[in-house]
Amino acid sequence: MKAMVYHGPGRRSWEEVPDPVIGAATDAIVRVDAVTICGTDLHILKGDVPEVTDGRILGHEAVGTVVSVGDAVQTLSVGDRVLVSCITACGRCRYCRDGMYGQCLGGGGWILGHLIDGTQAELVRVPFADTSTHKVPAGVSDEQMVMLADILPTSYEVGVRNGAVAPGDTVVIVGAGPIGLAAILTARLYSPSHIVVVDLADSRLEAARRFGADVTVNATKQSPSTVVKELTGGLGADVVMEAVGVPQTFEQCVELVRPGGHVANIGVHGAPATLHLEDIWIKNLTITTGLVDTYSTPTLIELVASARIDTAPMITHRFTLDEFEDAYDIFAAAAETGALKVLLTAAK
Amino acid sequence: MKAMVYHGPGRRSWEEVPDPVIGAATDAIVRVDAVTICGTDLHILKGDVPEVTDGRILGHEAVGTVVSVGDAVQTLSVGDRVLVSCITACGRCRYCRDGMYGQCLGGGGWILGHLIDGTQAELVRVPFADTSTHKVPAGVSDEQMVMLADILPTSYEVGVRNGAVAPGDTVVIVGAGPIGLAAILTARLYSPSHIVVVDLADSRLEAARRFGADVTVNATKQSPSTVVKELTGGLGADVVMEAVGVPQTFEQCVELVRPGGHVANIGVHGAPATLHLEDIWIKNLTITTGLVDTYSTPTLIELVASARIDTAPMITHRFTLDEFEDAYDIFAAAAETGALKVLLTAAK
Repeated sequence: MKAMVYHGPGRRSWEEVPDPVIGAATDAIVRVDAVTICGTDLHILKGDVPEVTDGRILGHEAVGTVVSVGDAVQTLSVGDRVLVSCITACGRCRYCRDGMYGQCLGGGGWILGHLIDGTQAELVRVPFADTSTHKVPAGVSDEQMVMLADILPTSYEVGVRNGAVAPGDTVVIVGAGPIGLAAILTARLYSPSHIVVVDLADSRLEAARRFGADVTVNATKQSPSTVVKELTGGLGADVVMEAVGVPQTFEQCVELVRPGGHVANIGVHGAPATLHLEDIWIKNLTITTGLVDTYSTPTLIELVASARIDTAPMITHRFTLDEFEDAYDIFAAAAETGALKVLLTAAK
Repeated sequence: MKAMVYHGPGRRSWEEVPDPVIGAATDAIVRVDAVTICGTDLHILKGDVPEVTDGRILGHEAVGTVVSVGDAVQTLSVGDRVLVSCITACGRCRYCRDGMYGQCLGGGGWILGHLIDGTQAELVRVPFADTSTHKVPAGVSDEQMVMLADILPTSYEVGVRNGAVAPGDTVVIVGAGPIGLAAILTARLYSPSHIVVVDLADSRLEAARRFGADVTVNATKQSPSTVVKELTGGLGADVVMEAVGVPQTFEQCVELVRPGGHVANIGVHGAPATLHLEDIWIKNLTITTGLVDTYSTPTLIELVASARIDTAPMITHRFTLDEFEDAYDIFAAAAETGALKVLLTAAK
């Protein structure tokens, strides 16, 4: 088969590799029908994730069709359409039993395209297939569904739920990339009064307004703090989400929140931040971090199936699998191309 | 009357000052029967709290007897025995209505011995008296009660409740001063499996064992991380409380917690800490900070009245009010004197 293979920092290629085979009785092999690229894949290509080694097939998001199953797989059959979740769950360990699948101790967690071969391929081996896939309901398209493999549950769980967004809140989202936009979509489920989005690029802020931001702030032109204070009578926001992944934006989030508010970090970070405990010890803040657990994926599937969430506008560029290298080029140059999420589908 | 007056960094004296008078219709004047000294008072004396100015009467914890009330006071009468809480609450602002009295926007919050004259005096003016005092139930002694003015609700709310201590948890408390000891007392209410206390002084760790710690670690002799990992199968603690107030101990708390765990900062900090987002973004941590709100004071009074909590062992040294300067000397030299909380009472 063909697959997108990582060959060390800056090097990747769509190339011929051996087909995956069932290794454990709980595995399934899935034919990839739709797949996307994550910002995390770009982090890997920069060399930020040293656990990813030369020869690894990238990718942790896909929708596909089951083509074979191991003897212990109970709930999947050949021909089933499934979402392959970014999080693999053994289903038996302490963390899995507590719904915290991202921290799986039984060999799962974020492993696809990281510690084992991933989904950017014509076929993928999915371990613990019963507890690491979700069936695609009738009437839901592959492209709607593939957005639920990572980006929607990440923004919903790590941003909206950890941030405890509630009706009437003023919510600030720092960063209007795909994760920030998915945070807007899912924050709206809780009817906040205001969704304020902060970014450095007007094009991203335009996208934020299309997704439902009612206030946007270009931080190169306006002080986010001034805007938020004006909106909140000087207090600060109820919830601030970090959707960038650099120390400066995290520190800005802590400045923008009101006493008693929540800072939910969604960004993937590569460097420490300064936490101004001398200011915040007295402020009753709650700061959360997290890898997605995907406990919410069934809920999000229901919300898509009932048309409460429309993920399709996240996809700006479409390719077939054999155009994978072009898709990476377009996605990596998002600032110029305006790419949000790119969709790659198997040729019909 | 006599009072303990702050005269700038390092300078304090028990001296003659004018009696307080009713200033607003919601004020009460309380005769101080029992009062204590807080670690925060020592911070003030070091000059760490510049809002406290020359001439200010210190103190924010007392039990006393109401001697006069303003015209708008509804629930207090002359002769009532009351706890004067460290937090003054207007009862009407957004934060007070939400139970977050420490962040009161109506002129309350932590003001006694900070922005207005405090309780280390023969008489104290208590603003918003209806919502800033608690009646002392029959059968509860002044010395049991005065520990509920600040230290017990602080450890319980900011440590135990914010940290979400639950049955079966492994709880680590870094710092075995009075706040750490009160955290042990109140964490036990939730039946954790283990309470591990970390300090640098064996004398404090002995006290921790008396209060209910089942594992103590002298960090000058043993690695807290090794001990906690052994206790938790390598995972880390469910809840870690910071009860010191320096960057190093905060950073240690973040290292000791398991993925999915809680770090509850109780300490008063004067300097920023480094937050290793590059390690913790993926760990599903919840980090909280907070000034006490005292929403739990009625609960804690009930727990003391029903003998579920015994605060008396916190008091190691007793004085009369006119020995206030000696009491400060003993308390400030806690490392040598073994002082936990000092109690000062009006001469009978």
